[in-house]
Amino acid sequence: MPGRTVGGLGEAGILRILNRRFAALPAAGDWPEGTVGPGDDAAVVAAPDGRFVISTDAMAQDRDFRLDWPAVSCGASRAGAGDHAHGFTGGYSIGWKAAAQNLSDMNAMGADATGLLLALTMPHATGVSWTDGLAAGIAGAVRHLGARRCRVVGGDLGSDDRITLAITATGDLGGRPAVRRTMTPEVPASDPVDLVLCGRAGWAAAGLAVLDTSRDELLDRLRRADPGVRRLAALAAAAQLRPRPVLGAGRRAADAGALAMMDVSDGVAKDAGRLALVNGRRVELDPDWVRSDAGVLEPLARALGRDAHDWVAAGGEDYGLLAVLPAGARPPHGFRRVGRLAPGGVPDGGGEGRGAEAAVGPAEGPRKGPGQDPDQGGWDHFARGD
Amino acid sequence: MPGRTVGGLGEAGILRILNRRFAALPAAGDWPEGTVGPGDDAAVVAAPDGRFVISTDAMAQDRDFRLDWPAVSCGASRAGAGDHAHGFTGGYSIGWKAAAQNLSDMNAMGADATGLLLALTMPHATGVSWTDGLAAGIAGAVRHLGARRCRVVGGDLGSDDRITLAITATGDLGGRPAVRRTMTPEVPASDPVDLVLCGRAGWAAAGLAVLDTSRDELLDRLRRADPGVRRLAALAAAAQLRPRPVLGAGRRAADAGALAMMDVSDGVAKDAGRLALVNGRRVELDPDWVRSDAGVLEPLARALGRDAHDWVAAGGEDYGLLAVLPAGARPPHGFRRVGRLAPGGVPDGGGEGRGAEAAVGPAEGPRKGPGQDPDQGGWDHFARGD
Repeated sequence: MPGRTVGGLGEAGILRILNRRFAALPAAGDWPEGTVGPGDDAAVVAAPDGRFVISTDAMAQDRDFRLDWPAVSCGASRAGAGDHAHGFTGGYSIGWKAAAQNLSDMNAMGADATGLLLALTMPHATGVSWTDGLAAGIAGAVRHLGARRCRVVGGDLGSDDRITLAITATGDLGGRPAVRRTMTPEVPASDPVDLVLCGRAGWAAAGLAVLDTSRDELLDRLRRADPGVRRLAALAAAAQLRPRPVLGAGRRAADAGALAMMDVSDGVAKDAGRLALVNGRRVELDPDWVRSDAGVLEPLARALGRDAHDWVAAGGEDYGLLAVLPAGARPPHGFRRVGRLAPGGVPDGGGEGRGAEAAVGPAEGPRKGPGQDPDQGGWDHFARGD
Repeated sequence: MPGRTVGGLGEAGILRILNRRFAALPAAGDWPEGTVGPGDDAAVVAAPDGRFVISTDAMAQDRDFRLDWPAVSCGASRAGAGDHAHGFTGGYSIGWKAAAQNLSDMNAMGADATGLLLALTMPHATGVSWTDGLAAGIAGAVRHLGARRCRVVGGDLGSDDRITLAITATGDLGGRPAVRRTMTPEVPASDPVDLVLCGRAGWAAAGLAVLDTSRDELLDRLRRADPGVRRLAALAAAAQLRPRPVLGAGRRAADAGALAMMDVSDGVAKDAGRLALVNGRRVELDPDWVRSDAGVLEPLARALGRDAHDWVAAGGEDYGLLAVLPAGARPPHGFRRVGRLAPGGVPDGGGEGRGAEAAVGPAEGPRKGPGQDPDQGGWDHFARGD
């Protein structure tokens, strides 16, 4: 259907395009007695353990994603995030990433995702094939990342000059306690604890650097680099466009006795700083870990004139899992030690950043302890006054 | 804090502004054992009956709301939707309306709202007072509409050139079955059923007509009209800016044996058409009802050169409740009979528009039966190809 746009299809026509993709998910047909599937004023979803996990994330065109990245031309399309025919810069990658970052939030609590809701606004001139790709990307992430219990349970359509997506995810803890950002059980303030990471760090940031380079400059820089660098560039672009949160690792860490956990959306340094702050400690990242992870990306960083250490320590959007373990505990399968939370931070006071005091968004205390700056590196939409 | 903008506050600073309002809600401090409040990667919310109700709605600046309406100047600020000091065209009304339309979706299933999630994008130049007003409006709707169990459980912040809000609502059915759009139990296809409405119809559309008229023209038209018309204009503007879904009526209708139900977001004619379509019937709106409700708005319609019958039959955004009862059944308290669903529609076939076939958005079958057009009047974001 090349060239066709959604304008004039009516909401019903667009829903048919989206629903064809979502109905193909393994869990799509599974609506137990007493629940209500999509198509009503609201859905009714099972919450077998008497609770549900929920979070929401919004993405806007030109801020959180772009429609004009030259990824395909630099080889990213061969990097293989799934068995589909969609180009990397079409709707597929945007749908994938939006779903992935929401599934990651469920993972970070130790929960299995059970549902996604999609609030989508787009211009009338949006292509039918782009819209179909978006839905395929959402379904693709659910399927390929292994969220077997996850269905699309509802949504909302609107028209706007630009594309925005807000996805809400729900999850089920299967009777387990949630793993929070604050340590449970508490650990004496004088005891250090280990910081372990599952998943890659710095790859999405490297990918952003690749995608932000003009095609001509990129080809020129890659031509002058080692042969392996081109492949590295494609993998990094794929990591940015189709991040792969390590679903299941959250539950594994919970079973292994993780004291606290969060996913890495804003970079290890910043997110570890958040963990430190709410737990009254300071971060000590292991320089050997940074060096070791940066080593893999080093040839690409050199080719682009960038710093791989920065990517690893401060780069966001890889959606790895950062967990806190008792000092010396053996990391669960797939996790590696990246540092520790040491005594000496300014206690958060238990107020700001969680509980009744904080109703929206991630915990982020107002004060910064000596020797730490959780806002160092990483991304804050409103940190600058411009 | 007049003139201050959110740029440079950082997300933590903005969260403090929002959370101060949300923390004042009656239910804000009530997080039972095993649940997790805001400030983590996700919230964990109680679902006492082993299920939860969920829906999402997005609103975009200049499409779903405007920042430049002259409502205050035409007297709407005295129409009184709550005990607050915010102007009608500030963030307060936008927050109110976004919350109200989501609370209405819970009402339409017969559920009590338990949670709201707010995904908010805005420019750096957005005023701090506007942002505070938005949060106050969300909290104000929750409080004044009587959603006593409802808390703000999470959200997401992003920067963008324009303001967009996506709100997700969750609800609890307290062990009752949800009242769906499809009749339960089924009624023989040859039996007509009654259509009853709770809440106003046409007022929000009348308000839109008021707000869309330039200030000078409006003052001129109102000056030449009866004295009561100015008051009517203010009430209509208030109905558009701060709709008041009749929370609790959904549960009342469920207890009274409503067979099917939905809220009226796109106008009685269109939404009744949707009910008819998914139930294989056609709509017969009672002309006496339309005349009677239009009578109240008639003086305003005359002053503006508009048709009050159109407002009542086709105007959306009043968030009344449309319920289906067995023919001749006495309407529950607050409901009035507005017509019936008569035999003779084209059956929906049970596929398109609900169940596994439809994952996003309201039920809306692909075919239109003879004598009915569910798209007549009301609003479809993608009905036109422009």
